[in-house]
Formats: sequence, C-alpha cells, structure tokens
Amino acid sequence: MEGLSALCTPALVVDLDKVKRNAQRMIERCQKMGVQLRPHMKTHKTLECADIMTAGSRRCIVVSTLAEAFFYAEHGFDDILYAYCLPFDKMERCAALSEKLDLFQVLLDHPDALDQLKKRPLKNGRLWHVWLKLDCGNGRAGVLHSEPGALQLAQAIAGTEGVELTGVYAHCGNTYTCKGLEQIQAVAQETTSFVLDFMEKLRAAGITCKSSIGSTPSCSHPVKDMAKLDEVHPGNYVFYDVQQSIIGSCCLDDVAVRVLSGVIGHCPHRNQLLIDCGWSGISLDGAGKLSTGYAVIEGHPNLKLLSMTQEHGRVEPISGLLDYSKYPLGSLLTLIPYHSCATAMMHPVYHIHSDGHLLGKWTPTRGW
Amino acid sequence: MEGLSALCTPALVVDLDKVKRNAQRMIERCQKMGVQLRPHMKTHKTLECADIMTAGSRRCIVVSTLAEAFFYAEHGFDDILYAYCLPFDKMERCAALSEKLDLFQVLLDHPDALDQLKKRPLKNGRLWHVWLKLDCGNGRAGVLHSEPGALQLAQAIAGTEGVELTGVYAHCGNTYTCKGLEQIQAVAQETTSFVLDFMEKLRAAGITCKSSIGSTPSCSHPVKDMAKLDEVHPGNYVFYDVQQSIIGSCCLDDVAVRVLSGVIGHCPHRNQLLIDCGWSGISLDGAGKLSTGYAVIEGHPNLKLLSMTQEHGRVEPISGLLDYSKYPLGSLLTLIPYHSCATAMMHPVYHIHSDGHLLGKWTPTRGW
Repeated sequence: MEGLSALCTPALVVDLDKVKRNAQRMIERCQKMGVQLRPHMKTHKTLECADIMTAGSRRCIVVSTLAEAFFYAEHGFDDILYAYCLPFDKMERCAALSEKLDLFQVLLDHPDALDQLKKRPLKNGRLWHVWLKLDCGNGRAGVLHSEPGALQLAQAIAGTEGVELTGVYAHCGNTYTCKGLEQIQAVAQETTSFVLDFMEKLRAAGITCKSSIGSTPSCSHPVKDMAKLDEVHPGNYVFYDVQQSIIGSCCLDDVAVRVLSGVIGHCPHRNQLLIDCGWSGISLDGAGKLSTGYAVIEGHPNLKLLSMTQEHGRVEPISGLLDYSKYPLGSLLTLIPYHSCATAMMHPVYHIHSDGHLLGKWTPTRGW
Repeated sequence: MEGLSALCTPALVVDLDKVKRNAQRMIERCQKMGVQLRPHMKTHKTLECADIMTAGSRRCIVVSTLAEAFFYAEHGFDDILYAYCLPFDKMERCAALSEKLDLFQVLLDHPDALDQLKKRPLKNGRLWHVWLKLDCGNGRAGVLHSEPGALQLAQAIAGTEGVELTGVYAHCGNTYTCKGLEQIQAVAQETTSFVLDFMEKLRAAGITCKSSIGSTPSCSHPVKDMAKLDEVHPGNYVFYDVQQSIIGSCCLDDVAVRVLSGVIGHCPHRNQLLIDCGWSGISLDGAGKLSTGYAVIEGHPNLKLLSMTQEHGRVEPISGLLDYSKYPLGSLLTLIPYHSCATAMMHPVYHIHSDGHLLGKWTPTRGW
C-alpha cells in the first residue's frame, strides 16, 4: 500500500480514522441528548464523508448550495435541508427538487420569499417544506428572534396554502468568537433559550414545528437545554481545524485534514524557505490569527507560514536562523489548516489515508 | 440571446470584448518592442482564453502548475514553459511532457534541481530545456541575481550533458507594491537591467541563451530597455482587476471579470444587506486593501463588502442608512474582484458574454 509520500504536492490528505471518530462522537452525543443530528455537508461536499456522517442512512442532511442538494439527491440522498435564504433565481430548481425528493426543505427569513413560494405552487399537491431562519445573535441571516416580525412571519408561513412550516432554524456562528468551553456554552445556551422561547410563542399561537440550532463549537459541547430541541446541524466537526482547536471545540489531535507541501526553494539571503503551497492550496483564511502564520506546520513549532502567492508559500523561523539541512529541496512539510472549510474548497480531490496508508480519493462537488 | 440576469448567482462573468482588447493590446505592445510574448495561463486556466492570448497559435505559453501543462499539452498546445521551481515529486511527469512535446521547458534555481535532471536523462537524445530563475528583487523564488552562485549555476546548467540552458527568467512581482507609472517603470527598469547585466556576464563566459521578465504591471507599461529582452511573460492582463487598476496597470474599465451576486437578505437592525457571494465566490484576497471592502461594487460607490463567510457577504453603506427599496431581494449586485486570479480560482465555470449577451462557458483546469 502506498504511503503519503507518494503523493504529488500540494495535496489535501484526510485521516479516515479521525473522520470516523469525529463523526461517531457527534452521533453518540446526539443520541445521548435524544436530538436528531442533521449533519452539514458544506465542509467536505463529498458522498463518502456524507455516508460516514449519516451512518450510511443517506437521510437528514443540510447543504449550503443548491449544487450540493442536486449532487446528493442524484446519489440517493433524501430529507435534504437547503439551509440558505431562498434565492429567487433558483426557485425553479428548488421546485424541481421539492417535486422529486420525498423531503426537500427550504429556508427563509423574509415575507418576500414566502411570496415567491406562493407564486410557484408545487405539483401533485406537494407542500413546500419551510424552515424559518432566526438570527439569535449571530448577526448574519435570519429574522431577529426578538422582533415581532419573526412570529408574524412564522404565522404567515404556517397559514399559507401549499406551504408547511417545518421548523425554526438558528445558526450560532457567534460561537466562532469564543475561547473555551464556558464561552461556547454561554452562546449555545443563549441561542437555545431564544429558540425555545420562540417555540413557546409559536405553541401559544397554536403552531407546532421542529427546532434546530447548530455550529460545530456548540454541538461539540452541547448544553443540557439543547436536549429540548428537535435537531442540531453542525458540519465542520467531521474535519475540525486549527480554528476549532483554538475555540475549544476539539484538540489539535482531532483535526482530520492536512495539506502536504513540498520544499521547493531555499532563500538564505532572507532566512526563508519556499513551499509549493500558496493560497491556491490552503486559502487565505486565518490571516493574522496565528503566531505561526496561515497554518500550523506540524512538528515544526518554530516555523511560520509567513505569506503566500498563488502557488508559493514563504516559510521562516519564528526565531533564529533556518538550518536548511533539515529542509532539503523535495522534503515535505505538513500544514494543519486554520479553516478546513476554506482549505477543502481549494482542492478538486482529497486523498484519504489510514495511518499514513493511502486508501483512495474523494471528489467534492463544486459550484452553486 | 439570454442576458446576464438569466444566470444563477454567484457567477463569474467574463466580458469577451474586453478580454480580446486586453490580449490584442499586449500582442501589439510586444510586437512594437520586438519581443516575444509568452502569456501566462495561471489567471484563467482555460483553452479559450489561451487561444485568444496566443492569437490562435497554441504556442509559447507559461503555466504555473503541471496540471495546466498537461491540460494544454493534451489540447494541442506546445512550447510550454512550466515556470515553477522544478518540484522533485513531479520529475517523472515533467520527463513525460519533455519526451512528448516538441518543446517543454522547466525552470530551476538550485544545484540540487540540476542533479535531479542529471539523474533522469530524457529518452531518444532529447534535452531538458531549462530556464534559470533569477530573483531580481521580487523576494520569492530565484537565485539572487547578484550572487556569484547565480552565474555558477548558469554555467553548470550549460555544461551539463542532456541539458540545455534555454533562458534566464525573472518575475518582477515587486511591481505589485507600486502605485502609478513611475514606480512600475522603476521596478521594470531595475529588473530589466539586472537581467541584461546577467546576460552580459553569461556572454562573457561564452554562454548564450534567452532572457525573459514578466508581470502584468511591467508589461502593461514597458520601459525601452525591455526591447533588449527576448521574451516577456505577463498573465493577469487578460482579465485585470481592481488591484491592477490601483497599481496603475490599467483603468477600471479594462477589467474584464465580474462576480454577479444576488441580494438574499435585508438586515435593517444592522444597516446591512446580505448577498449570495461569500469567500467561496470571490476569495479573501484584498482584505483590508479597499475602502469598499473585499471588492468594488459596480455602480454603488457608497456600498462596502464588509465581511464574508463561505456563502454570505455582508454589505453595508460607507455612510448613511441603506434604502432597502433600492436593493430588493433577488436584485443583483455586480462585484469587481480585487484579484482576478484568486477569484477565478473559486469558480468551476466562467460565463462569457459580449455586451451583456451570454455566449457560453469556459471551464478552467484545476489542481497540480
């Protein structure tokens, strides 16, 4: 069996054992809570990893693009939630999936989006399955949980013919500014409480539907009240990354992805070396966040990935002079990505290994 | 004929007329100088754009990855320079191209790389065609032009059996820190002078070979002495971008690429709107460089692309309150990328138009 050193670099390598362990832990955590896990596919966008995250069921997933939804639908997946504010240019494609799958679900946060659904009733008496997106402090998409408009919109969805209010959805992406368990759980608790309060208001208005929150930090360290939710929808956890280890979602040993990079240049006049991983191989995510630059260089805590151009990375020591004999041309450096979602996006193929033995390739879907 | 508004967003759109105009101008500029243009493919990585840049000859190109080299070779291109410090893990693939094409050329800046070539003589008496990479102040790859080792390495290449010293290559990427014609031309002059001085030393040592410098800023505004070079190798000029307009390589009207993005959210409580272009649609390149954030939003000088996550962009006014009636959900915003190389990398397909009428798609190659 070939080892990792047989790969041409830069190469995204995925440790299958860690992927399986991360996935299994999340499955067990959710089972213990009694909450349905609806894993997010956006980090990897592959069939193989989706199978691992759904334990082979090919049911109950979240996607971030309609391209992912079609990709998974074409490969036998169902119960797919397109957790993205209903884009008006993609109405017909959403309708096509809604009419094809047993359960395709969309999401919205604005009355104008509901109007779009009304204008395009589904065939054969099918219903649009709609999640209402709440902003519970994340500050991205969603109607603000505290606004009267939130309840009004939920009522409007529930009261519209041909449309079903399937659930209430909140993404606690504000956990990404946390450091440590306490801060993560404070945000997880706040988001959960806001959603549960909203569910209470819905019940008072005679409406019942599901509830879901998610983010890798919150679902890696769930609070007790999350057991009162119906679903959670984390995604990054299957790979994790340096960012998640800093937040406290995982330890660095849990990170399942690396970028293998080759040394291609010695620059003694600048006390630097060059590697063949530029931003095309790892992304620019994490700029300014780490003392080791754009990544952690495994086994070389004194090295920093200082800067990158498209196909070159400049590496220098944090202190002292480089001993070039330790880094001959052609030798490998292993980069642990700051943000695995961003790094995986740069690679048309992932190389899968177990304990350094190559097992095969996974090919992600791309586009929108 | 369908217009741009028929596209699902985010979409990379390429103005074919501007591409042709940018390409033609560079061709004429080089003809006037009497210097061979060897256009770089790294920005777009498509066949169609390569045909435009080579005026249909399918000869004399530069690539940044071996995947590009194979892609172009498989489609009838030849005289390909893989202008990247010879990566030892790709020796067999380089040898395969050298033995297949009429003229495949590699590049190196270290004696160890020359040793690799010696270890793998080409079949049928073929020669390794080798460019020596000089660092003339750019501070990335290349042996420093002023070091005695540079001349020694050139002599070693020229004196090695089975290997030909084809040329001396310098990338004046340090033009990217310039603002305006004067600064660009100062760097262009410096790089040219260093290379020409080096060529003089080579001649004195009885060695003749080609010389080449390149970068989009320098080749957009060449200095007189560049006529003494054999080749130039710019690439980004075919698309240009906001960065190049700030450097002074072009005006904003020359930029041939845009990302079309749809408005997907209104956030009056934050005075923001959301668009469907996150970093997966435009890249994180240019962070902190523009008063308008990660891009210029065409026709809306008061809007700023403040921050992005994978599939969301947060847009806010530079001053004042947003008038949401001007940006209904589903309406389009057109982003001019800061760095077209980085933005193009994020798209599996480019949509080509002339004056807003869709003409077709170009599909880039990816990987290494």
